[in-house]
Amino acid sequence: MVFYLIGLGLGDAEDITVKGLNTVKKCVRVYLEAYTSILSCALDKSKLEHFYGKEVIMADRELVEQRSDELLAGAEVSDVCMLVVGDPFGATTHSSLMLRARDLGIPVKVIHNASIINAVACCGLQLYSFGETVSIVMWTDSWQPDSYYDKIAANRSRGLHTLCLLDIKVKEQSVDNLLRGREIYEPPRYMSCSEAAKQLLQIAERKEKAGVQPAYSAETLCVGLARIGWKNQKIVSCSLSEMVLMDMGEPLHSLVIVGDMHPIEMDMLKAFSTCSHS
Amino acid sequence: MVFYLIGLGLGDAEDITVKGLNTVKKCVRVYLEAYTSILSCALDKSKLEHFYGKEVIMADRELVEQRSDELLAGAEVSDVCMLVVGDPFGATTHSSLMLRARDLGIPVKVIHNASIINAVACCGLQLYSFGETVSIVMWTDSWQPDSYYDKIAANRSRGLHTLCLLDIKVKEQSVDNLLRGREIYEPPRYMSCSEAAKQLLQIAERKEKAGVQPAYSAETLCVGLARIGWKNQKIVSCSLSEMVLMDMGEPLHSLVIVGDMHPIEMDMLKAFSTCSHS
Repeated sequence: MVFYLIGLGLGDAEDITVKGLNTVKKCVRVYLEAYTSILSCALDKSKLEHFYGKEVIMADRELVEQRSDELLAGAEVSDVCMLVVGDPFGATTHSSLMLRARDLGIPVKVIHNASIINAVACCGLQLYSFGETVSIVMWTDSWQPDSYYDKIAANRSRGLHTLCLLDIKVKEQSVDNLLRGREIYEPPRYMSCSEAAKQLLQIAERKEKAGVQPAYSAETLCVGLARIGWKNQKIVSCSLSEMVLMDMGEPLHSLVIVGDMHPIEMDMLKAFSTCSHS
Repeated sequence: MVFYLIGLGLGDAEDITVKGLNTVKKCVRVYLEAYTSILSCALDKSKLEHFYGKEVIMADRELVEQRSDELLAGAEVSDVCMLVVGDPFGATTHSSLMLRARDLGIPVKVIHNASIINAVACCGLQLYSFGETVSIVMWTDSWQPDSYYDKIAANRSRGLHTLCLLDIKVKEQSVDNLLRGREIYEPPRYMSCSEAAKQLLQIAERKEKAGVQPAYSAETLCVGLARIGWKNQKIVSCSLSEMVLMDMGEPLHSLVIVGDMHPIEMDMLKAFSTCSHS
């Protein structure tokens, strides 16, 4: 039979495709991958179970990456699926799982859906004018990587926009609990547009101190996107320094560093963001 | 009321989301935008009408771009929608239509779906490792633009993959018919992976003749993607010179010029393309 990877899209239970829904209904086991994104208010396990009329099993990173044989068990004789928020390839490729299925002779089929990678264009900026996507990670006192800066700089030197995916910490252990082998997990944390903007400006400041002209400044236009695809999505365009002070509300947030704009993009950005400056 | 832009996804009628389907059912008029992409065998107007149980009106470029007030008429009192293959923002932003709706005080809502921009990752290459997307246009004897070459070169210099969207000519008039004002349209034409690879190699040859080291060569690895999301989708990875000879079958085709690969990407590309070389 088939192992299906089914995209749930970005919003609520009804954002699954008709094909995806029909497939879920015929599967003997339905997993929900829930560690690379977050579910919206209308997308929690019980609401999905109610919508599908069947049990949904939570799949954490360990099950997907370390115990994939358990997840795939029986898929050679009955259909099994894993639901993924967005597109199955949006946030992560689930490569090891797909390759493992392939090794076991289980056909893999993908049912695509929207992900932030294409839905970001709802802010009015053209998908064609985006460069490489970057991930901005949460800093700690001792670990402050900034390698994504170079990618943003390379995009800006070509006039391109940069989609910044913001860090998510789900089911993380504190160093202390990790060392003591205690399976106690920290509450989930999601980086906000404000935190990302602050971090980006700190990097620019460091570059300046090192005698390098930074690729962006406090005045650079950015777009904050919160809860895209949800009923209460919020899109705000403002300068990076204004974004530091902006409350975009609940997660999930993404941030776009705007490159050169076509006049139509300016009009669209003004029309489709709550408060806009250009 | 609301003007809805509804993504149809890439495959057949069942790739619409449940939310999209419910929205179509409550709209007084349903348009189908059909000039920026093509419909698959299971996505023609009559099959959609059968699936939705209501009339679907074809919207050509002229209706969308020049007669948008006609399309939007009545949307202030009843829901109207336009269906778009892929994501509403994937192939084109429909910006003028959205801005016009905004001017008329008609709320615009978007129901996202998959587009080639994110679905391309089904070949095994990571979305994060793609640079700027380019469009490759069909050449004529007198018009052979190659500005996308610079974008591919810039992506390659950073080790990034390039998604090349291939030209579509739908409802085009011959110069003769255009000059005589005759509304006679040429049969639709779709650029193939083979044609795109050939054109890209011609550009490389010209660069070489001009004394410039081209950014790719006949040996460069590429991925041909045909009919992605359709039941008979085909993914082939091979060298550019091999792609020139490759028959990928019916449209729609896209081509990826591969940049630097992570070992996992190599494994995925091998596993998920019909014939692979790396």
